[in-house]
Order: sequence, then C-alpha cells, then structure tokens
Amino acid sequence: MLDIKITKTANPAAKPDSSKLGFGRHFTDHMFMMDYSRTEGWHDARIVPFANLSLHPAATVFHYGAEIFEGLKAYRRPDGGVQMFRPIENIRRMNNSAERLRLPQLDEEEALQILDTFVRLEESWVPSEPGTSLYLRPFLFGNDEHLGVHSIDNARFVLIASPVGSYYAEGINPVRIMIEADDVRAVRGGTGYAKCGGNYAASNRAGENAEKLGFSQVLWLDGVERKYIEEVGAMNVMFRFGDEIATPMLTGSILPGITRKSCIELLKAEGWTVNERLISIDELGEALKNGTLTEAWGCGTAAVVSPIGELFYKGESFKIGEGKIGEVTQKLYDTLTAIQWGKVEDTHGWIRKI
Amino acid sequence: MLDIKITKTANPAAKPDSSKLGFGRHFTDHMFMMDYSRTEGWHDARIVPFANLSLHPAATVFHYGAEIFEGLKAYRRPDGGVQMFRPIENIRRMNNSAERLRLPQLDEEEALQILDTFVRLEESWVPSEPGTSLYLRPFLFGNDEHLGVHSIDNARFVLIASPVGSYYAEGINPVRIMIEADDVRAVRGGTGYAKCGGNYAASNRAGENAEKLGFSQVLWLDGVERKYIEEVGAMNVMFRFGDEIATPMLTGSILPGITRKSCIELLKAEGWTVNERLISIDELGEALKNGTLTEAWGCGTAAVVSPIGELFYKGESFKIGEGKIGEVTQKLYDTLTAIQWGKVEDTHGWIRKI
Repeated sequence: MLDIKITKTANPAAKPDSSKLGFGRHFTDHMFMMDYSRTEGWHDARIVPFANLSLHPAATVFHYGAEIFEGLKAYRRPDGGVQMFRPIENIRRMNNSAERLRLPQLDEEEALQILDTFVRLEESWVPSEPGTSLYLRPFLFGNDEHLGVHSIDNARFVLIASPVGSYYAEGINPVRIMIEADDVRAVRGGTGYAKCGGNYAASNRAGENAEKLGFSQVLWLDGVERKYIEEVGAMNVMFRFGDEIATPMLTGSILPGITRKSCIELLKAEGWTVNERLISIDELGEALKNGTLTEAWGCGTAAVVSPIGELFYKGESFKIGEGKIGEVTQKLYDTLTAIQWGKVEDTHGWIRKI
Repeated sequence: MLDIKITKTANPAAKPDSSKLGFGRHFTDHMFMMDYSRTEGWHDARIVPFANLSLHPAATVFHYGAEIFEGLKAYRRPDGGVQMFRPIENIRRMNNSAERLRLPQLDEEEALQILDTFVRLEESWVPSEPGTSLYLRPFLFGNDEHLGVHSIDNARFVLIASPVGSYYAEGINPVRIMIEADDVRAVRGGTGYAKCGGNYAASNRAGENAEKLGFSQVLWLDGVERKYIEEVGAMNVMFRFGDEIATPMLTGSILPGITRKSCIELLKAEGWTVNERLISIDELGEALKNGTLTEAWGCGTAAVVSPIGELFYKGESFKIGEGKIGEVTQKLYDTLTAIQWGKVEDTHGWIRKI
C-alpha cells in the first residue's frame, strides 16, 4: 500500500455546466503526483491542489519525448455511485509503454489504489448528465535535469481528471474518413503499440490536412508496405464484411485498444466471427465497390464507437451503409455504454466500483 | 527586429571548473523564452534568470510529443572572441521539424538575433579550455492547456545554454557499435528527418541494451526493409570504401545533420568522391570481410566525428582499420574543429562571430 499524502485545496472551484463540458477543458480541484529515482524507486505519493508543474528546462520530457499516458473514465451509475471501466487494462498498457520507452513501471495494485483514492476524493466532479463522465489522464515522463541522450534515472507520474461531455451530444453521426497516403504514424519495431507522445506528434500533420479537406480523421496505412489498414485517427478500426467482423491484427505498430478488446469480446460472446488479421487497402476498396463492406467504425475510450459513413481514397469517395450507423455498431455502442454507466449488470468483471 | 526584454539575474552563479564540465550538466545564468499563440503570433520575447518552467499539467508537450529541438555551439576563438558554427542551418532545420509536427516556425532573422543577443549576454560562460564550448539548446513545444488530440494553437520557444567539456578529454578512441536488428528508430513518412522527441524515445531501449552489452551505440537499419544503414546512435554515419566516401542518402527517416553536410562539403572540396546513397547491411558485411571498408565514423555536433573501430552484427564482430582512427576521419576532425574554434580562416561562410 502506498502512503498517499493528501493536501486539499482551500479554494474548490465551481463545477462547470455539465451540458457544456466538451473534452479536456475543465479540470478537477486536485492532482496526484509521485516521483521516481533509480535509487529511491517511486516516492512522495501525494494529492495536491491542481496547479502548474514546475520543471527544470533540461527535463527529459521537453527534449527526448520520454512521455507516456493513458485515458480512462469514471462513470456515474443510475444509483448515484461511481465506477471505472477495466482500469487494470490501462495500468498494464501503461507498463508496456514504459518498457518500450525505458521509463519506470508502476506496481499494479498501487496504481489501482491511486485511481481509487483520487476518484473517491474527486467524486463530486463525476457528472451525471447522460453521456458525461470524469476522464482520467495518468501520464508519466522522464525528469532528468540534464541534457544528453541517456537512460532515464528520474521520472514523474501525474494523474489529472477532467469532467467531459457526451461525445454524441448531437446524436451519433457517421463520420467521413480520408485514407492517408503520405504520412506514416508508426512502424513495426517502433513505438506504435505504446501510448507515447511521439505517435501523436507523427499524426498531427495528416490530421490537420484531413480536417481542412472536410474529413474527421485519417485512416492510417502500415509504414512498411503502405498497404494494410492500421488505425483511424487515434482510434482502432473495425469492419463488417458480410458475416465477418475484421479488425487489424496487433503487429506492433497498432495501439492495443481497451475498447477494441472489449468489442472483440462482446462480439464473440454474441456469436460473431471476429478476425484479427491483415486487411489490405485493396481488399477494402474491393469490398467498398461490391458492397460487402456493410459497416465500419472506430473504437476508443472517448467516443466508445464512432461509425464511419464515408471513406475517401485517391480521389474516390465510397459511402458505407448509406451513411447511416449500422446495426452491429449501434448494438456495440448500446451494450458497452450500458455496462460503462452501470445500467446493466457487469457479467465480464470489467467494472471497478469506487 | 524582435524587442527582447532582458531581466538579469541578481545572483550570478559561480562558473564550474572547465576541466570537469561533462555534457549538459551545468547551465548559464539566463534563458531566452517567447510564446506563440495563433492569434498573436510570437510574442513576449524575453531573457530571464534561468529557472524552472511552470506549465499547465495538460500542456500539449507532456502528452502528445509536440516538441522539437536543436543543438549548436558557441566557441572561444584564440583571439578571445566568440563565434557560432552555421547557426542558420539549425534554424532552418528547426523550421522543417516544426512543419512536420505542425508547430509554429521562427523567422530566420529573428532567430539569429535571439542567438546573437543571448550568447553576447552569456559570453563569460563560453569556456576556453581546449575542446570546450558553450552548447546552445533551442527547443520549441506545444503549450495548449487542454487535452484532446488537436492542432496546436499555443507554443513556447526556449533557449538554454550549457558550458560543455571536450568530448575527447581522454583522446579520440574508436568506439564499438552494435547493429540493431529489432527496434526501429524511424521510418519513411514518419518523423525521422525532424529533430523531435519521438525519435529519441524510440531509440532509448536499443541504446540501453547495447550499452549493457559493452557497445557505445547502435547502428540503425531502415524501418521498411531492415536492410539499409541509417544512423549511428544519434549521429549520422559515413564509410570509406577504398577511394569512395559513402553516407546514407536522406530518404526522410534520417536526420539531415549539419556536421554531415559540412563533412560532405569538405571532402568534396578535397577531391574525394562522396556518394549519398543506399548502403545495405550486406554491402557493409561484404566490405568488412574483404577489407575494402577501411574507415567508418559517426558525425554530429557533440563529437564532431567519432571513429568506429568495431561493428557487431548477428553474433559476429568486425574490426575496422585495426581499431585505430583512420586518416580521413582524423583529417576531418582536425579541419572541422580548426574552423569551429577559429584556428583557421573560414573560407566557407560558416562562421558567425558574436
């Protein structure tokens, strides 16, 4: 058990209007922090009033991209209680990311204790409007106070939280996606499977270009053959080809999404054939033309599932499912959100009540 | 012209012993900063006492790897004056990095003015022991104070400086290099040509593993075919095959080094055949076995040139040039350092005197 020292704020903030939260724009009254050094290990676990971080200008995080993060949510149940969705999966993924970047890992039990303690303290910040939640953002970064490329001796773990609005405040509308032909997000052997800053830095330009052209996101192709589907924007992607559900296999350049994993488990439990496999752009093009691709969606913590209504590639535009949300997509959304917000019983052991 | 507001420290630090400087461990009395917003552009250019940076915990730099940097040096001339080596090249590369990551770019003239003004103020920090210099570290990062992956509206540029020791305090000794077969640093279409944090984050694990096995650095292979030589550690790499000097061509995944560029220009001026081309690991292996590879060296700002005495690949070790520094390597080192420290006349227009 960690000894978490708690210093409460003397000036609690007024809660924002929960019908106008948006994403990641409001923060709760406190934050959790602890520091790591190679000699002391993790130490000084503390919850303090939310405030700026004060860091040495040479800190590793500013120069050498030594930064990983996670995103998960605390949900308000109908009975007024609060629960998290599969937090252990986020902790394990964060440790996998840490291994790739050679940052220190967390003890799983201590990490759960941190999440529990923090969410309990900030419980009044978990909103209750439909579709809202408290987004939790743990992040961990290198904090050596000198320059030069070297192995990391000091690090910091921080947990902040933001009450967030419904992703679909205006209803679920299928989005338009552009297939990216130039920029590459990640490559096998690189950091694609780690949730680290560098992957997002590599993605920005294509995302901005797509947005200017009126698309919501880009669909990434693999960095080796520029042929196989990887992710959509910052989400995993799934396709329904007739009676098969297919999603790109985890080759090392794809983020192992927790919503992805949950979708696969739910679909299999309902009897669907779900294949994690290579999906080429040619296969997708063929299926778009002959109509066997009947549904496509992105999946991730923020949107849960996000139906794809249109794909644009090399000057051609293809509508999917007449631009409407498909039946599998809708069912997945309904099932997952019912579990996450505690509207149905959790038969999977996914829920951690606070 | 920028209006740079200067606030001098009230407590100048004692200068460190210039025979024990090391790299990036001591910092000067001040730092330069300026902020960017999409509406105001760059503003608040200021030199302030060196101090921690205070940043919002949601700042883009902590989460999405929105960070680029440069490294260049100010040298003490024999006449007591101070000069920089090709600073315009660093500014242009930083702007190219900014374009890739969609960070705001700098005005070239204003950036030179910042370097001039800052180095002039910190002039007493430029050491004069042989081989020492003042290392300048400009860095630029995303500073939006909210979460969510998005285009960047706010950024900060910071310049810090560190007096650094001679890289070769104990003489130039050829290093042992391990060819990396698993991890990938960068891929075409990614961010390899940008000097951004993510590339270094991807490199850490292999570097650490190599160090544990007694090697100084790894030699990176390309991410697509895992066949072509890219870089050595955080330096560019050059080979002498008989009468040819060869260095990996800039395919997009390789950093366009300024020392690399200077080496190519100096070698060509001396009549060498210098080819920027693909160099496969098979060609290298063949040349190692039949002895046509007579010299190999890394090149970068920190070491200038770093001779490679031994290459290790798939269980085999190959000595290069009997483990001694080669004639071309030594000549390049002598010529470049003579220009950088102002011991010979600069006939290339590379020097900017302060």
